[in-house]
Amino acid sequence: MSKMKVLFHINDPDRWPRVLLNITNFINDAGQDNVAVEVVANGGAVVALTGEKAHEKLQGEMNRLAGLGIVFSACRNALRMHSLDEDTLPPFITVVPAGITEIVQKQAEGFAYIKP
Amino acid sequence: MSKMKVLFHINDPDRWPRVLLNITNFINDAGQDNVAVEVVANGGAVVALTGEKAHEKLQGEMNRLAGLGIVFSACRNALRMHSLDEDTLPPFITVVPAGITEIVQKQAEGFAYIKP
Amino acid sequence: MSKMKVLFHINDPDRWPRVLLNITNFINDAGQDNVAVEVVANGGAVVALTGEKAHEKLQGEMNRLAGLGIVFSACRNALRMHSLDEDTLPPFITVVPAGITEIVQKQAEGFAYIKP
Repeated sequence: MSKMKVLFHINDPDRWPRVLLNITNFINDAGQDNVAVEVVANGGAVVALTGEKAHEKLQGEMNRLAGLGIVFSACRNALRMHSLDEDTLPPFITVVPAGITEIVQKQAEGFAYIKP
Repeated sequence: MSKMKVLFHINDPDRWPRVLLNITNFINDAGQDNVAVEVVANGGAVVALTGEKAHEKLQGEMNRLAGLGIVFSACRNALRMHSLDEDTLPPFITVVPAGITEIVQKQAEGFAYIKP
Repeated sequence: MSKMKVLFHINDPDRWPRVLLNITNFINDAGQDNVAVEVVANGGAVVALTGEKAHEKLQGEMNRLAGLGIVFSACRNALRMHSLDEDTLPPFITVVPAGITEIVQKQAEGFAYIKP
């Protein structure tokens, strides 16, 4: 059976807990080996990817999910707009040139789209 | 002609009136016999499915739409998180193990995704 | 190579700046000739399409994007609900009978869905 492919789109920083909970529930239900999950963060959602204390818990959870194979992508345009240096991002983050392009491409590859 | 298939995703309870209006307008435009519509509720949206007085009007409208063939699904994880007993839900609600899995599967079956 | 097709859905008027920025970034990244983009506005988002002073800047930006081939569609149901006369809309707006139907049809035609 082919994997269940899903892309989560987040552009509001306060939605991170919800996105990460959705992913955890999805993995628990469908099985880690049966899913391909990518999160694309653009807009203000990228501010949660900085090294501030306030984001420690969220990033710990992201790191745990990354260890299970979840892909985290951040939009370069959004990082620039928020004056964030991509060299300071956590190592599990992949920077993509444009978040929208990434989302369009993944849907073309058969990923479901979910906006929590 | 094959039916127009669409899945509505709702995770904020205050979006229910909008979702139900969207569905009504869609049916009026496309014709009841030409559409297959499912609503998947997860997150806080499931609280509107309880028997409180405040939700009576919403649930009356859901019930009317269910009578037209619209499927209403609620995420079991979300029900548990909000301490809701699924045996007390209105009869037109189907409980699914995980809302996200349901959304992914429906998109794989050709349902369009809409997040009102 | 076929064009990258994407439909942006907006139903909250305060999301317009974000939608228009997303489109601009997408065009800059993917190239104007390689994309097909449609914006479908329903719900309260249609109020930004009226001729009020407050919307001048937004509509200037929409007009610029329309000149690049971006399609702007407004839901007739939403226009009526907000008592907006469609004859007074800017010329770059196309009125569709029902926004939801338009969104479903575009996804069936292979457009990716994005809700900024």
